[in-house]
Amino acid sequence: MFTCSEYLPLLGHGKVEGIGHNGYLSAFDHAGMPLLETALTANLTHADGLYALIKWVQETVGPGVIVAVGHRIVHGGLSFSSPALINDDTLAQLEKLIPLAPLHQPHNLAGVRMCSDRFPGVPQVACFDTAFHRGQAEIAQQFALPRHLMNAGIRRYGFHGLSYESIASVLPTYLGETASGKVVVAHLGNGVSMCALHNATSIATTMSFTALDGLPMGTRCGSLDPAVVLYLMDEKNMDSAMVADLLYHQSGLLGVSGVSNDMRQLLASSNPQAKEAVELFAYRIGRELGSLAAALGGLDALVFTGGIGEHAVPVRELICRHAAWLGVQIDLSANAHNRPCISAEGSAVSAWVIHTDEERVIAQHTRAVLIDKGAAELNHTKGKE
Amino acid sequence: MFTCSEYLPLLGHGKVEGIGHNGYLSAFDHAGMPLLETALTANLTHADGLYALIKWVQETVGPGVIVAVGHRIVHGGLSFSSPALINDDTLAQLEKLIPLAPLHQPHNLAGVRMCSDRFPGVPQVACFDTAFHRGQAEIAQQFALPRHLMNAGIRRYGFHGLSYESIASVLPTYLGETASGKVVVAHLGNGVSMCALHNATSIATTMSFTALDGLPMGTRCGSLDPAVVLYLMDEKNMDSAMVADLLYHQSGLLGVSGVSNDMRQLLASSNPQAKEAVELFAYRIGRELGSLAAALGGLDALVFTGGIGEHAVPVRELICRHAAWLGVQIDLSANAHNRPCISAEGSAVSAWVIHTDEERVIAQHTRAVLIDKGAAELNHTKGKE
Repeated sequence: MFTCSEYLPLLGHGKVEGIGHNGYLSAFDHAGMPLLETALTANLTHADGLYALIKWVQETVGPGVIVAVGHRIVHGGLSFSSPALINDDTLAQLEKLIPLAPLHQPHNLAGVRMCSDRFPGVPQVACFDTAFHRGQAEIAQQFALPRHLMNAGIRRYGFHGLSYESIASVLPTYLGETASGKVVVAHLGNGVSMCALHNATSIATTMSFTALDGLPMGTRCGSLDPAVVLYLMDEKNMDSAMVADLLYHQSGLLGVSGVSNDMRQLLASSNPQAKEAVELFAYRIGRELGSLAAALGGLDALVFTGGIGEHAVPVRELICRHAAWLGVQIDLSANAHNRPCISAEGSAVSAWVIHTDEERVIAQHTRAVLIDKGAAELNHTKGKE
Repeated sequence: MFTCSEYLPLLGHGKVEGIGHNGYLSAFDHAGMPLLETALTANLTHADGLYALIKWVQETVGPGVIVAVGHRIVHGGLSFSSPALINDDTLAQLEKLIPLAPLHQPHNLAGVRMCSDRFPGVPQVACFDTAFHRGQAEIAQQFALPRHLMNAGIRRYGFHGLSYESIASVLPTYLGETASGKVVVAHLGNGVSMCALHNATSIATTMSFTALDGLPMGTRCGSLDPAVVLYLMDEKNMDSAMVADLLYHQSGLLGVSGVSNDMRQLLASSNPQAKEAVELFAYRIGRELGSLAAALGGLDALVFTGGIGEHAVPVRELICRHAAWLGVQIDLSANAHNRPCISAEGSAVSAWVIHTDEERVIAQHTRAVLIDKGAAELNHTKGKE
């Protein structure tokens, strides 16, 4: 996403596809009209893709237009509970967190390093998927493991924080006073998690140490007896790389259905295993909703977001039916039309469909960090005068 | 437990302690009065202990008094959804399940083999901790793993089935008509799990593939991101035996408190980490209660059982406070007196303390299997006439 200053209106956004294969860059204006569709190099890396996008922005909008780059960084560990200006020290700290998010963190940091090399002098800001959850009570972040392991960083971090922050920021617009109440947000995309919000702050969430835990996802298993990992190693002679590949890439909707990791394909399929995968997905969400309502001590509203949450009408219907006992009563017509409010009039718990805009949250954070940086430098200069 | 025929009144019960060390056998009459306290051999095995107990019964009550032996067998896999007469074929099937319960199954089967050797001709009956859950809907038994793994037996089995069966059998006595409603039973002992019952049958439970999953226990961790296992191996150079030892023997109440795995000691301790361990225990139970209520679509009653459940007054109070949002209102005085009903008059959800009697369930099953066996043999003989 690239924006102009002050009120951050959206100028455009772009995406890079085919990483690792034949890269492809597309860009769109603020209204979603295509501005560019172009093939990139073969064997494209994450850093290559980001470079091509920034380069195109510079060439199209003009030199000097890039005042800062905001990055989504999946893991901020315990040290980062808010966005941070990236410098050598920050980068070194974030590199230490790679073992906590081996699938995402290295690619995130490769983009940061590319920007330092190719666009020196352009400030960079790290926005963390974990930061939004750092205010949770200790008890919600704790596994029942020996204390020295928790102190060494083995705890429930939670993810999708930028998405939850985006939703939290617009809750008052949709929910009015209920926005400060007990709200569960279901971020249902390719990654899937849920977050319990009270007063728009995170109380508990389903992902934990990594983005593998919690709910079934496109290809990730979600909650699993940890003894299954031991069993696969001891009895099936799998090593940890094979188990990781199984749990991250062959499980979830894909594994259960045997058909696809794409909810649209599962909903369109007549294969009974595809139907089972969708039902298991909704059932587990229903179970976790009960657990999160327990963390909140009740429920006032349920919000759907993410690709599946914003578009998969039958999935929302299934989940709302599982949530009927909590007081969720769906309005089938409103749901079919993807309306913002999909609960029936008089429903004790309201249900909503709200678009998440993580990129806008990153842009806002980046701007705020730059303003703080400017103010700090000004003070520093003044101090010297 | 040893009983006489017909109505199965309790004659007495015994227990063996100090397995692996200096064995100790004690026996009590039906009223709990000591009949015997005696040291056994050093390096006592499970089979040695059981032999000593049966031998003592024979010597004390008289020869021929043992008409059958009922065994608690932790894992019945998918094949055993009810108690079974043990023969060579049964034993071979149960041995194949050892990898699913490596800590318990071998000891259970060692007792069976000892009885075959030392008491030939005495029928033996296997009663399974998993069987009570086999009627659950498939969706409740499923992980979001590739289908071939579920078919190969990697699924949520659930445990403590004999305890839940014991509670289910006496629910009408305590709860009246509510016994057929939506009931969650919290079996809080050294092992800890919860089970959602509807019409006194299991709908869902917290333990899954093994008895490691679900709630924190004395020394077991309960729910854990499966990626933590991979992290410990890849980053901390632990092998699967070290991880298993950590998760089974060094975690749970012991790991979090650093003090003890015994709830009595934690409640008596002024150590703040002991308090934290108790609070985490109750918090996780509160979360899982929400999840099980979701499986049931509501909650009519909450039942506490097991050593902690039957005796730890402050733990029940903490859990009931977490469950207030579901309509549980505790009667502090009734709770302090371990009364059967500990909820306040008018509480929307009633709360109970009920003693579990797994040994009686085993005795009843053993008798029923013997009667079936007798009837089958009679029919067989008649057919030959």
